[in-house]
Amino acid sequence: MKLLLANPNATEAVTKACALLAREAALPGTEIVEWTNGGGPPLIDSYYGDYLAGRPLATALAALRPAPDAVVLAGFGNYGTHAVKEVLDVPVVGLPEAAMAYATPLCHRFAIITTATRMIAYTEDLVEALGFAARCVAVRAVQLPPIDAAEPPADHVVTALAAEAAATGADLVILGGSRLSPYAAALRARTPLVVVEPVACAVAMAESLVRIGLRQSKSGKFARPPRPLEEYG
Amino acid sequence: MKLLLANPNATEAVTKACALLAREAALPGTEIVEWTNGGGPPLIDSYYGDYLAGRPLATALAALRPAPDAVVLAGFGNYGTHAVKEVLDVPVVGLPEAAMAYATPLCHRFAIITTATRMIAYTEDLVEALGFAARCVAVRAVQLPPIDAAEPPADHVVTALAAEAAATGADLVILGGSRLSPYAAALRARTPLVVVEPVACAVAMAESLVRIGLRQSKSGKFARPPRPLEEYG
Amino acid sequence: MKLLLANPNATEAVTKACALLAREAALPGTEIVEWTNGGGPPLIDSYYGDYLAGRPLATALAALRPAPDAVVLAGFGNYGTHAVKEVLDVPVVGLPEAAMAYATPLCHRFAIITTATRMIAYTEDLVEALGFAARCVAVRAVQLPPIDAAEPPADHVVTALAAEAAATGADLVILGGSRLSPYAAALRARTPLVVVEPVACAVAMAESLVRIGLRQSKSGKFARPPRPLEEYG
Amino acid sequence: MKLLLANPNATEAVTKACALLAREAALPGTEIVEWTNGGGPPLIDSYYGDYLAGRPLATALAALRPAPDAVVLAGFGNYGTHAVKEVLDVPVVGLPEAAMAYATPLCHRFAIITTATRMIAYTEDLVEALGFAARCVAVRAVQLPPIDAAEPPADHVVTALAAEAAATGADLVILGGSRLSPYAAALRARTPLVVVEPVACAVAMAESLVRIGLRQSKSGKFARPPRPLEEYG
Amino acid sequence: MKLLLANPNATEAVTKACALLAREAALPGTEIVEWTNGGGPPLIDSYYGDYLAGRPLATALAALRPAPDAVVLAGFGNYGTHAVKEVLDVPVVGLPEAAMAYATPLCHRFAIITTATRMIAYTEDLVEALGFAARCVAVRAVQLPPIDAAEPPADHVVTALAAEAAATGADLVILGGSRLSPYAAALRARTPLVVVEPVACAVAMAESLVRIGLRQSKSGKFARPPRPLEEYG
Amino acid sequence: MKLLLANPNATEAVTKACALLAREAALPGTEIVEWTNGGGPPLIDSYYGDYLAGRPLATALAALRPAPDAVVLAGFGNYGTHAVKEVLDVPVVGLPEAAMAYATPLCHRFAIITTATRMIAYTEDLVEALGFAARCVAVRAVQLPPIDAAEPPADHVVTALAAEAAATGADLVILGGSRLSPYAAALRARTPLVVVEPVACAVAMAESLVRIGLRQSKSGKFARPPRPLEEYG
Repeated sequence: MKLLLANPNATEAVTKACALLAREAALPGTEIVEWTNGGGPPLIDSYYGDYLAGRPLATALAALRPAPDAVVLAGFGNYGTHAVKEVLDVPVVGLPEAAMAYATPLCHRFAIITTATRMIAYTEDLVEALGFAARCVAVRAVQLPPIDAAEPPADHVVTALAAEAAATGADLVILGGSRLSPYAAALRARTPLVVVEPVACAVAMAESLVRIGLRQSKSGKFARPPRPLEEYG
Repeated sequence: MKLLLANPNATEAVTKACALLAREAALPGTEIVEWTNGGGPPLIDSYYGDYLAGRPLATALAALRPAPDAVVLAGFGNYGTHAVKEVLDVPVVGLPEAAMAYATPLCHRFAIITTATRMIAYTEDLVEALGFAARCVAVRAVQLPPIDAAEPPADHVVTALAAEAAATGADLVILGGSRLSPYAAALRARTPLVVVEPVACAVAMAESLVRIGLRQSKSGKFARPPRPLEEYG
Repeated sequence: MKLLLANPNATEAVTKACALLAREAALPGTEIVEWTNGGGPPLIDSYYGDYLAGRPLATALAALRPAPDAVVLAGFGNYGTHAVKEVLDVPVVGLPEAAMAYATPLCHRFAIITTATRMIAYTEDLVEALGFAARCVAVRAVQLPPIDAAEPPADHVVTALAAEAAATGADLVILGGSRLSPYAAALRARTPLVVVEPVACAVAMAESLVRIGLRQSKSGKFARPPRPLEEYG
Repeated sequence: MKLLLANPNATEAVTKACALLAREAALPGTEIVEWTNGGGPPLIDSYYGDYLAGRPLATALAALRPAPDAVVLAGFGNYGTHAVKEVLDVPVVGLPEAAMAYATPLCHRFAIITTATRMIAYTEDLVEALGFAARCVAVRAVQLPPIDAAEPPADHVVTALAAEAAATGADLVILGGSRLSPYAAALRARTPLVVVEPVACAVAMAESLVRIGLRQSKSGKFARPPRPLEEYG
Repeated sequence: MKLLLANPNATEAVTKACALLAREAALPGTEIVEWTNGGGPPLIDSYYGDYLAGRPLATALAALRPAPDAVVLAGFGNYGTHAVKEVLDVPVVGLPEAAMAYATPLCHRFAIITTATRMIAYTEDLVEALGFAARCVAVRAVQLPPIDAAEPPADHVVTALAAEAAATGADLVILGGSRLSPYAAALRARTPLVVVEPVACAVAMAESLVRIGLRQSKSGKFARPPRPLEEYG
Repeated sequence: MKLLLANPNATEAVTKACALLAREAALPGTEIVEWTNGGGPPLIDSYYGDYLAGRPLATALAALRPAPDAVVLAGFGNYGTHAVKEVLDVPVVGLPEAAMAYATPLCHRFAIITTATRMIAYTEDLVEALGFAARCVAVRAVQLPPIDAAEPPADHVVTALAAEAAATGADLVILGGSRLSPYAAALRARTPLVVVEPVACAVAMAESLVRIGLRQSKSGKFARPPRPLEEYG
């Protein structure tokens, strides 16, 4: 199957890093098609970034021909996930919903670590909105440098992640940002908690949905918008 | 004071109708400045519409010079309200949050009537996201024709609104769509419930915030985005 | 308009201090009419104080002739607010509901600081009862001396308030006690959080309700009590 | 032990009817001491009635000498229960908290039937405030005539109660008003649901607390008010 | 991979029916190993059935050598799922948690249809316990005959399922009982709602967890029991 | 009346210790009949222990002839309490539900202290399942040695309990494990919080239910299982 990996931000390096993780996780017969939201911001670090990403993301994905078999939205945020589910007839899976869905059978309470203090409120809103607040014990942050600065030494990031994970009291931790995903393997060596890397979860969930014949319901919230899409501006 | 009344959709007639209500509600010294989101959809009838509206709305409002004293987002939805709060330093008030805030001291439980069955889920998400679910007993819909069709006879709409309001068991009803606002006065003559018209609430709240010197907190969720705005795409 | 500022406790100095804040916040055409609950306790520092205040408050306000245009109950508590809403046909607004309603569009999560450790539980009950628990992250206290002791140095109070505010993790703080309201301006100079002073909010909300023609619903919870009031004892 | 049965309203006939139920439920060694709140309203049918009852109730019970071994507040409402717990050092039990506490091990979800439509909101607030909302599936009402009118035929009341109970979907029903308590036995013959009569529960709970040496905690919410009681007005 | 499909009840026919669905859903390389809980009840139709199933289920699965790569507990209930997660080091997935996890990205609110009226309370408890109550709008039942009676005509069951699904207001329905799973395909032809068949979800989720290297956290709730297993009785 | 005190674990010493507490709490006319779950584990320290205990517990209690007047399940856990309620027609009371029910009128928020860190998650699940989460502020643990090791000095345990109780911020603490119950009296001398010992509460509640004629509802969740019990395996 063809699985579109759509990076909601405009940074190709993030797309590449996610695609690497996606291909590691994917089934042999799955083709991971990379897609970068060229019209979006370089990084989604705010609600402003979220809404600037969402419009080009939703309009471009609506226009893709032929449609892929499923879409993974490869960012740990919102940026119009519901809108994409409305305009597509194939399964659309976001990182946060996949990661939290896969976390539920594996733990008592999970924690999420995000990439900046200011994204804690944003991520708490996301957890609430997706209906997982009963299982999420904490959202915390490590502080990453700007996307265009040099990456800090991996060991520093992993140490910070391990410290935050331990501080939450959770028995499972979700890496809440696509920039954190590449550190998952190293983090597993440093914490007794289960570490959930969302790209792998979303790929697995999207593949699963295609294989068992499920997609978002078209009889309610995710029905196609009532007007022809070109009329939306 | 100058209060910008920003219609998130592109339909001038809706802007005009809201401006009429806004001017009726405003203080003598308040100038209501109309603004229509020309880059948005004619009507926000879906999550797709929401995200297509949000980007031009947020970028245009961020660029307004001189800034008004406050902004009312004159639609009963989301379309980037948080993003607008991030990029502006003046108070920004959305219709749903103003209407629900003003409803709380006036009732036991309120109901919201929206403009289409498919917007019920959307509106329920909004109530949750704004933290008012404990006070909202029901979201229901009357079915309006497309924005570009002829408006139905006012009496039909009011009768439908009164019937939905009575069916909710609430003691107060919020008109959850800017197209419904003009029917508020007529509805009051037809129901014993308190009828909350959100444009008036949002104008009053925005004026209040300006006068008592409050605006959204810049120390957390609504801090200015970390990068120069022009870098967001 | 005539706005009755009703202090639920019997201490005139508190009435005066609140009236000062109310007049600063009020519209030019608003007349703030001071009223002190002479039959109530000097300070409402317990549930016992709450219920001792509530009866003389509710009976006296029910008997006021002519009725004012609106009533602000100038204490951060309960003491029969619902009862007053039942017996009056004009808008009645309590400090906690006004402060929390105005806080909602301005923050992610608010905190409340109250005037004594023992009032934390009382205030938590209030937040729950008014339906704002989803937005309130913490209730904390500074410790004020008894109402009849000398006021501590303002700087001590403000320092304590700033420390408590910072400790909550909120991005907005509500001063949860009419004795704290006079410190709002000084506190704003000492914290990056938005500081909500409830008297100003309640005055603005009451004025707004009068101007846009809203009051508590008389079709449910706040309907007039079924018997003539003089039969209630 | 001496157990004070305090009727928060002023109607002796209600006190008598409750005392009958209390004596049926009490242990052989328990003396039920009747007390009627002469300064309160004839019936608590509103928040106004609640607050008018609470002040004379709390002040009179605080002044009782010698104190009884425990107090049952024999009304299905609030009227200052927390205030009474503050001023007394013996266990104080209200009907709603006792009835709901005893209902929890006996059912999946309980319903409460109250005595007037307008008391539904009041009772919902009570359930919330006491922390039992997770177990309460519905509050409904039968409509009783005014307290000073002739009682309707018992069979009519029981038929109405059985119908409301069946409509709730609960597996247990609580009679939410002291005027309903005398119908409990007859209702049990007419419904397969468990019928909880609150006076019996409160008597049993108060006796239990005395016997096992428990009372309300004096280290927090229910600590004695900070000032001498006579200073409260 | 070897995936153990463990039927918690003792009825081989149910195991067979589930295995059929499991094999349809499984990846080419997955071997579905059937296992029937011979020491359990023929059907889990009560809490008594649940607890009688759980002990032989947990002890037998703990003793399996060699361990499979993952375990699917093929019943829509509890019967010791947490206990099995404690004693095994491979991923263990129950039907309800898998079905609800896969439902979350696909709908606004889901409903569950169970196999008997008395199982509604049981299933509501399950939804609460797994933390999905925020997304579940209703639990309803069709009434199936006893497990050892003749199955009713498929068309009757499907008609009843379609009617219950439509009555819930949900946009997705989960078949909450392994006896209902075989009707999924027929039901899809009769309702516009998405129909989630839990066996397929659990197989897909278990395969996913194995492939991406996740299992229940061993650092908290699901750590191995502290004593040697043979000491547990 | 005959009250069966059923210890869900197999350790006679625990039965004895609980019986001592039960007899202290019981009415003069109550006969406490001790019963030990010989087929269960020596201690319930995990979900595995819970499910291993539940089956022999439920089957043995279902078979008791003559039935006692009521049953107290003398462990602070689940182990099939609902199943026992299904199979018996007399009141069945578990320690956690009795302790929390009696705690509700006595405090603002209670805390529970359990006997091992790993039982915190287990106990949180229990609180949720019983519907008391709104009143429970924290679950914490002291660490006891294995059941077959020497008991630590009482003073060490009491000191640890007092420290944990103080750390919770609660005004009442429940001893959440039958091994902790014997320390209640000593703990009361060391903390200003109310200390709830669950065995006494459960005995008092069971006696109360018998005396006022209540038992679990047989019209819903706790109806007798549909098949003859011997068919359950």
